[in-house]
Amino acid sequence: MGKQEKFVEEITSMNEDFAKWYTDIVKKAELMDYSSVKGCMIIRPYGYAIWENIQRILDQKFKELGHENIALPLFIPENLLQKEKDHVDGFAPEVAWVTHCGDEKLQERLCVRPTSETLFCDHFANIVQSWRDLPKLYNQWCSVVRWEKTTRPFLRSVEFYWQEGHTIHETPNEAQQETEQMLNLYADFFENYLAIPVIKGKKTEKEKFSGAKETLTVEALMYDGKALQSATSHYFGDNFSKVFNIKFQDRNNQISYPYGTSWGLSTRVIGGIIMVHGDDSGLILPPSVAPIQVIIIPIAAHKDGVLSKAREILEKLKGKFRIQIDNSDQSPGWKFSQYEMKGVPLRLEIGPRDIENNQCVLVRRNSREKASTSLTNLEQAIEENLEIVRSDIYKTAKNRLTKMTYTAQNKEELIKFSTKNQGLIKAMWCGDLACEDAIKEETGASFRCIPFEQEHLSDKCVYCGKNAKHMAILGKAY
Amino acid sequence: MGKQEKFVEEITSMNEDFAKWYTDIVKKAELMDYSSVKGCMIIRPYGYAIWENIQRILDQKFKELGHENIALPLFIPENLLQKEKDHVDGFAPEVAWVTHCGDEKLQERLCVRPTSETLFCDHFANIVQSWRDLPKLYNQWCSVVRWEKTTRPFLRSVEFYWQEGHTIHETPNEAQQETEQMLNLYADFFENYLAIPVIKGKKTEKEKFSGAKETLTVEALMYDGKALQSATSHYFGDNFSKVFNIKFQDRNNQISYPYGTSWGLSTRVIGGIIMVHGDDSGLILPPSVAPIQVIIIPIAAHKDGVLSKAREILEKLKGKFRIQIDNSDQSPGWKFSQYEMKGVPLRLEIGPRDIENNQCVLVRRNSREKASTSLTNLEQAIEENLEIVRSDIYKTAKNRLTKMTYTAQNKEELIKFSTKNQGLIKAMWCGDLACEDAIKEETGASFRCIPFEQEHLSDKCVYCGKNAKHMAILGKAY
Repeated sequence: MGKQEKFVEEITSMNEDFAKWYTDIVKKAELMDYSSVKGCMIIRPYGYAIWENIQRILDQKFKELGHENIALPLFIPENLLQKEKDHVDGFAPEVAWVTHCGDEKLQERLCVRPTSETLFCDHFANIVQSWRDLPKLYNQWCSVVRWEKTTRPFLRSVEFYWQEGHTIHETPNEAQQETEQMLNLYADFFENYLAIPVIKGKKTEKEKFSGAKETLTVEALMYDGKALQSATSHYFGDNFSKVFNIKFQDRNNQISYPYGTSWGLSTRVIGGIIMVHGDDSGLILPPSVAPIQVIIIPIAAHKDGVLSKAREILEKLKGKFRIQIDNSDQSPGWKFSQYEMKGVPLRLEIGPRDIENNQCVLVRRNSREKASTSLTNLEQAIEENLEIVRSDIYKTAKNRLTKMTYTAQNKEELIKFSTKNQGLIKAMWCGDLACEDAIKEETGASFRCIPFEQEHLSDKCVYCGKNAKHMAILGKAY
Repeated sequence: MGKQEKFVEEITSMNEDFAKWYTDIVKKAELMDYSSVKGCMIIRPYGYAIWENIQRILDQKFKELGHENIALPLFIPENLLQKEKDHVDGFAPEVAWVTHCGDEKLQERLCVRPTSETLFCDHFANIVQSWRDLPKLYNQWCSVVRWEKTTRPFLRSVEFYWQEGHTIHETPNEAQQETEQMLNLYADFFENYLAIPVIKGKKTEKEKFSGAKETLTVEALMYDGKALQSATSHYFGDNFSKVFNIKFQDRNNQISYPYGTSWGLSTRVIGGIIMVHGDDSGLILPPSVAPIQVIIIPIAAHKDGVLSKAREILEKLKGKFRIQIDNSDQSPGWKFSQYEMKGVPLRLEIGPRDIENNQCVLVRRNSREKASTSLTNLEQAIEENLEIVRSDIYKTAKNRLTKMTYTAQNKEELIKFSTKNQGLIKAMWCGDLACEDAIKEETGASFRCIPFEQEHLSDKCVYCGKNAKHMAILGKAY
């Protein structure tokens, strides 16, 4: 047991120092490692396997809706990036520039893509002629580069992995439906797969994507009360189409410009999973994306029949679950700690006495509740327990969101909640940028979104007292 | 039929101008498009779907052998790239350099990875302490950048997609076994999945990978008689380990350096598929990687029951095959040409008379052989026909390889075969670089490999007449 205690001791408590707890986990659960390039991380196999599971689920959903994957270049020529003014203003300060190849200086600088709207538009202009060519529903899995000064593993790094969807449509209505559809797809993914409750809403003009007409977002609340912008979906109107000269002959034989969208979700969701579900023993992974869903730990493995029974269980179930066995020479206690650190949702203990009784013990990672289970109905019991893990960690997160969302009726409450309390703040807003700026300045809280689910808290803007237009959600953000 | 003829007319004949035929196909089958970055291509959905199928098959095979996926940075700091002398000499002339981020000049230049040995070694040095940490069996799916002056879609481009495996092991023997195992895995993939016969062998000192002790290769013969280096597997010994200071405590409590390998296969295999199997009507795709394996074309689709029957077939089979239906308003003839261009292995025609007889017509892409097939055993018939396509196109390619491999017994034959004939040349070689250089200079043919399957053609080197050490395979290469 000495090893186990030592192992647990090494993690900072989340209530003591949340930032340190976070970096302890990403290192000790072997999700990532620092690289020799400042701000770029290495996603280690265990972390990358989570991302692969996320990819598999989303990729299937995208394809079911008719989206196709495509690969565009890593580089954007400077003149292409500069075509859309708001877009270049948003990204140019943080792009990496390639200036030389071998010993030769390039005639035109190339930036490493920070996002690929400009490349997609350039391609669309080449391949679209008629309304029969529409819609184009494209997606790309890749990494992008934004030169951030302050970085944190998964949450903010110079290079990060994501998917970026880019679509164009005949009508504004179709494009807006796509924007909403993809936001709803993300929300469903967070709630039902990652067990993370989210708030769906619209970004303010100040917070929207550079070049977009409208940005929709799903926002999640972390354990420490900060918000994480978890995925976004943008509607461009015909803005990019006009700038990039994407034209098509419409159903009336007129030349028209298509309406565009883009939408993305990145490896920062792994940071969200850690900060929503983790505890002082380490990660807690939602079963849908856990690289190992069930870990079998033989007890008294040297005794006759234990290891062979454990292997028999593995063989029987390995087609149904991501299941592994740890038959290393470490103590069971060390192994318990190890797989708790790695957030494996379900532990299956099996020892000589269990075998005598044709049973095993299932232990859920989140609650550590133990249940003796007959080996006869093991598959069903595992399925049920994985579902209990998912629904329990969802409930915990949902309760937190409810408890840590405060309603500010006036400026004093707004300041009080944003300095004293940790969490989200609901407040009425007049819609003016001046108030948004002043609130950010005074409280440090930014407008996370104008939620789709509006409540009428009062008639007046929380800050200026003028007539309120919307209820907004505010918070400090990662 | 006018449309069909027009469509077919647009492709250059392969015997007339093979290079033009190739670029016609990649454009017209919608595999790729040119981008605004010189030398970087856009892989369009149909081309990318082929790559996704290749990825799925290989990824599963890698994982079955214990390999794990990982994501390392896109950038390599200049000092890291320079650590291994042969390696930097090989790649530095063609790397892209990032020098600025936003408006700021970087203190140290970063190159965009041309390959990731240096990054993997840097990471291994951080995470390996004991023999218990070995082997590390890692793989990465990503794109890399090499600034080539002359580019061709899929075959040679500035940015290309690949997988790069990187492993380290306790002993040289284990690492050598890994190098061979992965080469054999590639060969199996080419032969049994892509239906491309390959020659397995070892690269000469001159042709091996920069920094490797030994490079193994699979070489394939294209329709025009040129060779394509299709995948490689490298053994590094402890060369990189020593340079990057990767140390571990071995089983005898001594400090040791692990032995390394790397191995890769890239999107150039798509070029190989085109040039081995294609014909004057377009692509011919091996069923294992075809995005659409079966295309259903309703004949007289406006007639009662035709479309509903076609849909019934689709519904029944869509879980078993990658199958689609084209019920657009184009003529059947146009559709036949369209899906021949796209290389769909099997066409399923169904019209009113077929339905009366409870049958349909299956047409194999390669031979255009038609067979009426009962709808009752359709699934089995499709399976059999797909397998016939695979084995037929393999046989065609294998016969070509046999027919177009020439044996040169002396210098005159070597020169004759390499100038007059198109194909591969078998010849004995003394093993000296001087002869290899001279042969390349005089004939334009390079040493593709020293094949594992050696034959004793004579005692003398084909060029200098001194004692021969090996039989080599020579050819002009893409």
